[in-house]
Amino acid sequence: MATAVAGKGLEGIVAANSGICWIDGEAGVLAYRGIDIHELAERSTFEETTYLLWNGRLPNQLALREFQAQLSLARELDQRIIDMLRSFPASATPMEVLRTAVSALSFYDADEKDNSHDANVRKSYNLTAQLAMIVAIYDRLRKGKEIIPPDRSLSHAGNFLWMLNGVKPSETATRTLDIALILHADHELNASTFAARVIAATLSDIHSAVTGAIGALKGPLHGGANEAVMRLLLAIDTAGADPVEYVKNMLAAKHKISGFGHRVYKTEDPRATHLRRMSEKLGQDAGQPKWFEMSRAIEQYVKAEKKLNANVDFYSASTYAMLGIDIDLYTPIFAISRVAGWTAHVIEQLDDNRLIRPRADYIGPVYPTHWVPVEERG
Amino acid sequence: MATAVAGKGLEGIVAANSGICWIDGEAGVLAYRGIDIHELAERSTFEETTYLLWNGRLPNQLALREFQAQLSLARELDQRIIDMLRSFPASATPMEVLRTAVSALSFYDADEKDNSHDANVRKSYNLTAQLAMIVAIYDRLRKGKEIIPPDRSLSHAGNFLWMLNGVKPSETATRTLDIALILHADHELNASTFAARVIAATLSDIHSAVTGAIGALKGPLHGGANEAVMRLLLAIDTAGADPVEYVKNMLAAKHKISGFGHRVYKTEDPRATHLRRMSEKLGQDAGQPKWFEMSRAIEQYVKAEKKLNANVDFYSASTYAMLGIDIDLYTPIFAISRVAGWTAHVIEQLDDNRLIRPRADYIGPVYPTHWVPVEERG
Repeated sequence: MATAVAGKGLEGIVAANSGICWIDGEAGVLAYRGIDIHELAERSTFEETTYLLWNGRLPNQLALREFQAQLSLARELDQRIIDMLRSFPASATPMEVLRTAVSALSFYDADEKDNSHDANVRKSYNLTAQLAMIVAIYDRLRKGKEIIPPDRSLSHAGNFLWMLNGVKPSETATRTLDIALILHADHELNASTFAARVIAATLSDIHSAVTGAIGALKGPLHGGANEAVMRLLLAIDTAGADPVEYVKNMLAAKHKISGFGHRVYKTEDPRATHLRRMSEKLGQDAGQPKWFEMSRAIEQYVKAEKKLNANVDFYSASTYAMLGIDIDLYTPIFAISRVAGWTAHVIEQLDDNRLIRPRADYIGPVYPTHWVPVEERG
Repeated sequence: MATAVAGKGLEGIVAANSGICWIDGEAGVLAYRGIDIHELAERSTFEETTYLLWNGRLPNQLALREFQAQLSLARELDQRIIDMLRSFPASATPMEVLRTAVSALSFYDADEKDNSHDANVRKSYNLTAQLAMIVAIYDRLRKGKEIIPPDRSLSHAGNFLWMLNGVKPSETATRTLDIALILHADHELNASTFAARVIAATLSDIHSAVTGAIGALKGPLHGGANEAVMRLLLAIDTAGADPVEYVKNMLAAKHKISGFGHRVYKTEDPRATHLRRMSEKLGQDAGQPKWFEMSRAIEQYVKAEKKLNANVDFYSASTYAMLGIDIDLYTPIFAISRVAGWTAHVIEQLDDNRLIRPRADYIGPVYPTHWVPVEERG
């Protein structure tokens, strides 16, 4: 059979046709359904952006109202999911919990056995609403706090902050998170989305695909990087070190600095532009510019020394820190946004499906090596 | 950036180097670490085969004894996993349950945060032992039966049948299942294994990778096919229909017949050879050749009409039926074998890792399409 050998990690290989996301890595352009991420970050909402990702166009007034209503009505969790979350040990990390609880959601989704386009759209509303609820509820449970019921009058971002903190979020906090969710909602065939498509292409269910995607996002070479950035900032702060000296020593010891470089972007990640701005603004407003300033110094040094640009993860760390969010919720917040893209990609995959099944280049023992009885083995 | 466009579903694209599995699809050859699957099916055991997949060579006597001991010692489930299984609704399918419970296993694995080679080997012992236990325990719980504690003196196959049925399995049943487990243990970059590698390549944990792989295996274009084959046989039997007529009508109505054809094999799937033989033998011995004969008639017709060969799933259906196993456990049994391959591939991936991140060919709205205020949208 004719085979073509791809670059390691499938670099530069086109694995699917997709109408969802356009990235020009040389020019630093990201667009959802043709609309530049800068316009969306400045003018859109997460709800509208999700509609755009799922439907391929912006909603009119009626469609947007209906969409918002449906997404807020989907803020329902079966009591047995909540009981399950209560049974988890407080030592379980939020990403492990999210992966497990999302897998269990399929038990209680009436459409579980229906893999049609329409059923998957219905399940996507549920999943988008439920992921955010699970993250907020588990965080309260592990801290011994009461669960806050959803507020259907709030936006997706606002309701998450409300369920997480139990106080009505400020407009600034809500809008900051809303923009962060827009920026993280999709990114073409990133590893978690690609995992979701590989799983969905066996005609398995959307809960399997999203569960697998959460598992992939958890990795420090993917979504897990935003947590690693904040742990670095904290380590520098605790040591009372100069951030540039600290990073210089890390690089000298061949350590990787999380939050820099990207497989696709060869210039500034357009998402970083917004997160940098938000990180700075939140720091100024709170009279606490420490995390931003530390981040900026590191960014400039790594850019000058290693020619690496900050990516989406780098300034999301200090932005979420300024919103008072716990470090181990940074990657779950990525997930409660990226679920919009995962579900869009699963539905697109199933609309024109083929099993995703590449080949390997065999580098093992020569064939045939023969089986020999155990007594005769060295 | 230079990109190469792959065939749909990554057909013919080499996505990794691997020393685990060799397939010659034209000649119908499958080998693990260079050893032909026929030799392994005839002479090896699942334990020995798993050692081979993980270590690259057959074990000597001491190594095999130690390996068997470690694998049977790993037959432990945290009581909280069992409590969780009890809390699941009896309507949950075994594959959903397996996916969820395996995800939760990470909460209680002491090595969860250690992604080193050695820790992943330790976790692979646990996962291999635990997957089989979860399948057996949940099946008893959903039927209102008592849980059977593991018997550490039995083989992997024998212990599974013991925990499933609560009676000591016959030698024939144990060896039949053992061979089926050998045949299913690995198959290069099949969709579930590829999903596991995509997830692991973000440096996420092995539980995430195996959870995602279970989700992929669940699909009817992958592991789910063995259940679909048995449902077809049952439908034909219930209708009292002639199997060839029944399948002829299905094909005329453009229905796909599960258990036929393979992305890689262009001739007989070498695993089907063994499963056909076992299906026939079990039917003869039990004086109940019905499922085998029905299968054989369908196989010959589909081969003649559509030039499609039976694959691994086709005769595993009638083989498992003769072992008295419930239909919705067929794919979970695939999983309790394939976990040997999934873990081997995850460890191989991490030993020489790079993020797996392909590109998409953009077919959506032209860039730039501009955001317009909601009032101005049609």
